[in-house]
Amino acid sequence: MVVVPDREIVAARRPVTTTRVHAVDDGRARVRPDRVVTEEPMEIRVHGPGQAPAPLAVTMRTPGHDFELAVGFCLTEGVIARPDEVAQVAYCLDRDRGAGAPGDVQHYNVVTVRLRHPVDLAGHERRFAAGASCGLCGKTTLEQVATHAAPIPPGLVVGRTVLVGLPARLREQQSVFDATGGLHACARFDPDGGLAVVREDVGRHNALDKLVGEAALTGGLPLASQIVMVSGRVSFEIVQKAVLAGAPVLCAVSAPSSLAVATADRLGQTLVGFLRGDRFNIYTHPERIDLDA
Amino acid sequence: MVVVPDREIVAARRPVTTTRVHAVDDGRARVRPDRVVTEEPMEIRVHGPGQAPAPLAVTMRTPGHDFELAVGFCLTEGVIARPDEVAQVAYCLDRDRGAGAPGDVQHYNVVTVRLRHPVDLAGHERRFAAGASCGLCGKTTLEQVATHAAPIPPGLVVGRTVLVGLPARLREQQSVFDATGGLHACARFDPDGGLAVVREDVGRHNALDKLVGEAALTGGLPLASQIVMVSGRVSFEIVQKAVLAGAPVLCAVSAPSSLAVATADRLGQTLVGFLRGDRFNIYTHPERIDLDA
Repeated sequence: MVVVPDREIVAARRPVTTTRVHAVDDGRARVRPDRVVTEEPMEIRVHGPGQAPAPLAVTMRTPGHDFELAVGFCLTEGVIARPDEVAQVAYCLDRDRGAGAPGDVQHYNVVTVRLRHPVDLAGHERRFAAGASCGLCGKTTLEQVATHAAPIPPGLVVGRTVLVGLPARLREQQSVFDATGGLHACARFDPDGGLAVVREDVGRHNALDKLVGEAALTGGLPLASQIVMVSGRVSFEIVQKAVLAGAPVLCAVSAPSSLAVATADRLGQTLVGFLRGDRFNIYTHPERIDLDA
Repeated sequence: MVVVPDREIVAARRPVTTTRVHAVDDGRARVRPDRVVTEEPMEIRVHGPGQAPAPLAVTMRTPGHDFELAVGFCLTEGVIARPDEVAQVAYCLDRDRGAGAPGDVQHYNVVTVRLRHPVDLAGHERRFAAGASCGLCGKTTLEQVATHAAPIPPGLVVGRTVLVGLPARLREQQSVFDATGGLHACARFDPDGGLAVVREDVGRHNALDKLVGEAALTGGLPLASQIVMVSGRVSFEIVQKAVLAGAPVLCAVSAPSSLAVATADRLGQTLVGFLRGDRFNIYTHPERIDLDA
């Protein structure tokens, strides 16, 4: 049936990434190690006999079970109807790229699915994300952000007592969430903690896009003097969107991913997670948080 | 600046949808109304002076603030750099489609962003979902699923006591979640509640794709005699993927969306939500749940 020649388990690609945080509890901060979920892009390529691998999708995933992810994606998105259409699943080799490299270097962020029959992705490729370079997905994506977004300049400083008051104000305004339990909320606050705008959506990226769009339509961009808060977790995509809107401080009720932390660090954004009660973690650029205020 | 000629607020498009559930509490079920978050597809089209609107993306969103969403998406995905590049935001009219219809019928699931300058989406369109028909996004998407997926046949029946035991078994196996708080989990169980496979990922759709891919690579598809459970919420996409894998019963710790409920209902899948303690809600096809077992 399916031939899986490559070792899928690669020791270096772990589902958990270690980082350092300023853990704040009731006004006292200490720097300690913290573990965040690993988020990395993976490109899925598909081809049939005699065909060159064609990009189908890039998905932001946690490394591990990558071949399952590639085959499952092909099935649940209707690219194939049955598992036995798959001849082989493998990580991309440099020779697949026609790069003429002397060695066969495997790229663990690109998975190639070879089918037993020719495949036409014309009906699928428009529906999915695809565009990062082989083996360089993450770098390419991050560089695209850096190109579009100037790093956030210093300026805004937010007091600790303002930060810990934000979750309650967000919950007060979540009109639909209480009724359905199905919505993500996103808000922007003034530096003194006054709530400016809340938006909700079934998709967390949509809630943030609505918030940014509202600011755009009312002349409020960039969000250089606003605190942005999201009700759930923080992925790379959320940081990317918030940076492009110029938000210097991004807060979340829950956990950030590894790529969210790396991107915020690189682009000068202060990222606060697990903001609950009197506690929160500062993952990046703690200079914008005044613990004595 | 931005001209917004159309009424955006449309009474018929509400963020909350009413449905009916079998609410089960400690073995007693009653049928009552329930409210779920509305999830509907929205297509974003972009054009410049003299250009026909070109599809940029389809996003599954909660109706409301649709123009903000369209403009925010264009900004945070780098299609435009500044809000003043936008000349007009409007719902799609039939005449935009060249349909030659006598009246101008607005389509509230298609938003057109007209820019002040010509735009080339060649670098963007591959990165985003795009492909549904104007004004028919939801129908088209649902029909695509129906085409790929045969409705789930009757057969599997699951006892109430089995169902209420699943969340604890899933939590026991969530290896990474406890460490990071950043992962979605997805599992499949045997009909007696025995845990077969767990997969985790920063993306809930990836966790399910890994689960389906594992079954595909080990000859386990379709999942006709398995219970699938997800750790969070259930969107249309999750139901779509689970139906394509042939899963008759889909359970979730949290809330489903309106389109998740509609799709499960239409394709014969039993959808259980808010599975916590001795309580759960059956949203669709309750005939597969035996409350006396």
